Amino acid sequence: MFTYPVRISLRDGDAAGVLFFGRYFALAHDAYETFLDSHGLNIGHLIRTTGYLIPVVHAESDYRRPLFVGERALIRLRVVELRSRTFTIDYEFLNAGGHLACRLRTVHCAVNTQTRRAVALPNDVLTALRAELEPKNKG
Amino acid sequence: MFTYPVRISLRDGDAAGVLFFGRYFALAHDAYETFLDSHGLNIGHLIRTTGYLIPVVHAESDYRRPLFVGERALIRLRVVELRSRTFTIDYEFLNAGGHLACRLRTVHCAVNTQTRRAVALPNDVLTALRAELEPKNKG
Amino acid sequence: MFTYPVRISLRDGDAAGVLFFGRYFALAHDAYETFLDSHGLNIGHLIRTTGYLIPVVHAESDYRRPLFVGERALIRLRVVELRSRTFTIDYEFLNAGGHLACRLRTVHCAVNTQTRRAVALPNDVLTALRAELEPKNKG
Amino acid sequence: MFTYPVRISLRDGDAAGVLFFGRYFALAHDAYETFLDSHGLNIGHLIRTTGYLIPVVHAESDYRRPLFVGERALIRLRVVELRSRTFTIDYEFLNAGGHLACRLRTVHCAVNTQTRRAVALPNDVLTALRAELEPKNKG
Repeated sequence: MFTYPVRISLRDGDAAGVLFFGRYFALAHDAYETFLDSHGLNIGHLIRTTGYLIPVVHAESDYRRPLFVGERALIRLRVVELRSRTFTIDYEFLNAGGHLACRLRTVHCAVNTQTRRAVALPNDVLTALRAELEPKNKG
Repeated sequence: MFTYPVRISLRDGDAAGVLFFGRYFALAHDAYETFLDSHGLNIGHLIRTTGYLIPVVHAESDYRRPLFVGERALIRLRVVELRSRTFTIDYEFLNAGGHLACRLRTVHCAVNTQTRRAVALPNDVLTALRAELEPKNKG
Repeated sequence: MFTYPVRISLRDGDAAGVLFFGRYFALAHDAYETFLDSHGLNIGHLIRTTGYLIPVVHAESDYRRPLFVGERALIRLRVVELRSRTFTIDYEFLNAGGHLACRLRTVHCAVNTQTRRAVALPNDVLTALRAELEPKNKG
Repeated sequence: MFTYPVRISLRDGDAAGVLFFGRYFALAHDAYETFLDSHGLNIGHLIRTTGYLIPVVHAESDYRRPLFVGERALIRLRVVELRSRTFTIDYEFLNAGGHLACRLRTVHCAVNTQTRRAVALPNDVLTALRAELEPKNKG
């Protein structure tokens, strides 16, 4: 399971002193980008040069406990579904005490950069995702 | 129905030139705060002085079309469910051509600021939400 | 003088309940983009299609009074210097009471999108800026 | 000298594929918060419990080279001035090749949380800053 440590910084907190609900998605995407990096896929390079994008088509989150500004938390990332044209990533945010703070999910597809039409997932993306796909979902 | 015009600014776009998926939640919350303003409820005042908070406990979004940096879009906000302890807001993002770009939902509860325990929705919040509650959900 | 009204939203505040110091630059740039819009220059279109960019090469700000989450403020924008290759924009943030909250400045140049080398300011940018250049600076 | 590695994430880039100019201030503040952490000062704790804040009163930046989305960079932080009521931090952003991308500065003071009036820098802040103050500035 891929893990990504985060520190809740002042810029991501809100006036109640906790991580702003919308910023969980940004931090989850930071974790996802770093996961791609670890498989040799750089999101910036991908956007600039490959001719395809892998946008988010669905996102959702359930908040259980606040994360406070200054707190150190952990994001656990799992590839939970991988199809020919879409894939699903689940994220768990654990607070400094190891308790679940948030469950979050993103569903992605691949599109041609110019036409924005759906295309099959590129091979390098498939390879990276397969390496992390949970065994129970591998068929 | 409450509507909120937005312009997709450079700071909210990403390297693909479109609104970053996580920022839809921030813009939806901007619309929601302005909706509360229109009913005399200022979120900053609420956080600083009332002793309760109304955090988001669930959020989700479905993306249909990208919104481009520099594009002018419209957010339509509807109160779709109102219970004694929770409420649900739906948002539709329409692009410059009037086509649906994104559907988004936030579910909120009320908590005591100090204890963070759930409390009944305060009366002023109930009054504001009831005024905008869709008729089909009122009885 | 170009003016741009803003509402300090929850997402831009910090744990002290006030606009995060770094976000003044984002709001100033929102004002600047809207100023360009008013002269027919769309920043998204410019980045995607023109072959040049007009990045910020210097920025600075002096903070006098905090702006509170939920507060409505005003940004006043002035073109204070216009040269063949650079221009300078000054911004004043006024709080809800009309008092000065922040002075901010951005200095821009033009670069070729591919090479990132400095180029002369394009004519459409020059025309827009000249229209707003303060008389005392018009020589 | 305190160093802080950063990865330019998608959420911090702009439509030109580079770090948005205003976000350098956010990343610099992330570095500063982590520097304070390393001296036992947690900014969240400080805001919530100590009765004082250490806001930024001046900030400035000079941009030399863009930082690209996906790029790994380094921030070097130095305490360059320490007075009884203010202090100054300088930041250098180095790109993946080790070249200077940006110089940035923040000047801070201390204020009473309630009155927002200037107060002397608290002892724990002074101690942390002195430990990192450059020798040439130590008198």
